[in-house]
Amino acid sequence: MTRLSEFYYYDIALITKLIRSKKAGNILLQVPEGLKALACSLLDELKDRLKDVEIHIDLSPSYGSCLIDTDVTSSYDLVINLGHEKYPYWSPPDNVYFIDLLYRKPLSTEVINNTISKITELGKNVAVYSTAQHKHEVPKLAKILSSKGINVINDLSSPVIFGCWFSDLDNVLGNIDAVLVISGGYFHSVGVGLRIRNSKPVFKLDPYEQKAELINDKVYRFLKIRYSKIMNAFDAKNWLIVAGACGQYRPNIVRKLEKLLKKNNASYYISRVAILNEHTLRNIDTETIDAIIVTSCPRLPIEDLSRYHKPVLTPGEALMILSNRIHDYIFPW
Amino acid sequence: MTRLSEFYYYDIALITKLIRSKKAGNILLQVPEGLKALACSLLDELKDRLKDVEIHIDLSPSYGSCLIDTDVTSSYDLVINLGHEKYPYWSPPDNVYFIDLLYRKPLSTEVINNTISKITELGKNVAVYSTAQHKHEVPKLAKILSSKGINVINDLSSPVIFGCWFSDLDNVLGNIDAVLVISGGYFHSVGVGLRIRNSKPVFKLDPYEQKAELINDKVYRFLKIRYSKIMNAFDAKNWLIVAGACGQYRPNIVRKLEKLLKKNNASYYISRVAILNEHTLRNIDTETIDAIIVTSCPRLPIEDLSRYHKPVLTPGEALMILSNRIHDYIFPW
Repeated sequence: MTRLSEFYYYDIALITKLIRSKKAGNILLQVPEGLKALACSLLDELKDRLKDVEIHIDLSPSYGSCLIDTDVTSSYDLVINLGHEKYPYWSPPDNVYFIDLLYRKPLSTEVINNTISKITELGKNVAVYSTAQHKHEVPKLAKILSSKGINVINDLSSPVIFGCWFSDLDNVLGNIDAVLVISGGYFHSVGVGLRIRNSKPVFKLDPYEQKAELINDKVYRFLKIRYSKIMNAFDAKNWLIVAGACGQYRPNIVRKLEKLLKKNNASYYISRVAILNEHTLRNIDTETIDAIIVTSCPRLPIEDLSRYHKPVLTPGEALMILSNRIHDYIFPW
Repeated sequence: MTRLSEFYYYDIALITKLIRSKKAGNILLQVPEGLKALACSLLDELKDRLKDVEIHIDLSPSYGSCLIDTDVTSSYDLVINLGHEKYPYWSPPDNVYFIDLLYRKPLSTEVINNTISKITELGKNVAVYSTAQHKHEVPKLAKILSSKGINVINDLSSPVIFGCWFSDLDNVLGNIDAVLVISGGYFHSVGVGLRIRNSKPVFKLDPYEQKAELINDKVYRFLKIRYSKIMNAFDAKNWLIVAGACGQYRPNIVRKLEKLLKKNNASYYISRVAILNEHTLRNIDTETIDAIIVTSCPRLPIEDLSRYHKPVLTPGEALMILSNRIHDYIFPW
């Protein structure tokens, strides 16, 4: 069996101690989507260290710390959520603990040198962020950058970004020449690009691919698609608002959109669902609905629902239409 | 807009009264999967009668009364669940009310006469069941059958069956010559067939298709597939148990299976998830797992997961293997 510990570091002593200190008899293990199959190896490891505890694996989507099935967690003494940091705007049930899962393979010297030479052409000031799996790389990279005369401007005590939340990026944006994002895939770096309206170079440093990459072209393609969705929704009269569950239920945003929809003489329905996909949407959609706003996870319209035959917008995009302000792309809201 | 009321009867006065009596300011409307798009028309109707109440539509799967997202329902004063009866083994949150949704089109005289002539060839004693949408047809049909000299044996005060629960069918099975099921689709009638091991003729009377149909051939095909799954899992050493949420969390069945797996020297993991599909399963599945038992909804292995490349069993099927009793097919458990 491939072991989680081959690729990721987690503090097994800390987890064991946590289970013992909470006198937890039954435990639920939550692992990010791509690593769920490796959760079994961690479970085996814990079973070896802790006899007489029962550990189950949560199969619900674990894309982040915002969506946790509270009915399921309620049947456990302790819930161990691996690889995520707490979502800043929602507190999960008290029995949920977030434990670091850190990718073992460091950024290669080649990737770092490549980045430095590219950055040097652009300026002297950067911000460095990472996903939760790579946060230990941030101070290491910052130190090397500083030694090469590049100023790392952002607060390194909180460099972790989410798909919808970007630490203190907004505060430093005016003072930087580029953003560096240590992450796999394009999800987080594209998020940064959308957040800053593609206004600065965004470099993705990928520890899996061992590659430094400027991703602004990709962001631009996303922006083109998003603007086409916005244009398609411009004359919408009948809207469907989809609200979420747990940390993805954001009633204030629903209220704000309702207010604007009323002001625009538009009609609307509000719906609720924890897990949204195209099939869920088709179930409720009728020919009378012109456009859809997803107020749960703002990445669903962008990554999952961009092929839907009607415009599916993020709250920020809907706000652009409803407040007649399409000149500045708003993400994520 | 197509209106729900064109096809289904619901007591709008009762719903209005319920909302008023509970002084409910915000309401969640839950409608069965196939009718979700028509929920908007009911919402409009309620909005006309009740100003100043807010009504949202639940997009979570509403296949029955066993699975209700309790996090979502907790943000409403009142939850109206249309078209289902309470699941006998689980109590949903107190604010959930089940309201009848009754199909308007009655069984035609032709369907009924056709059924009577077929039944008469088989014997004199039948049991009559229906799904929640057609329960008002049961006494009508029973009266006609009685007038033709056919005895309706079962308790007509509770003729409603679920996909996994079959009222008092077991008690009357020894005394009947056939079962009649008033329902659309094949889901419920096939359930009856599996429950009785295809031991009696099962007639489906379909008010949508206006058709009386003997479905035992279909049940036989399902049984063949189920036995092939059972055979494929016979020598499984490593098992994955999938447990559910809310009314689909059945810890006693998990315990029973655990006990038998231990007795059989098999190893196993236990996982939890509210909404299970092939993708969810693939996330956790590894090459070391030989067979999977779904303890949430017993129809998931039969209808949704029968194409999975490994055997996915219901608890009853797993029990057949683990207790060495394959001669009697056990459904559903």
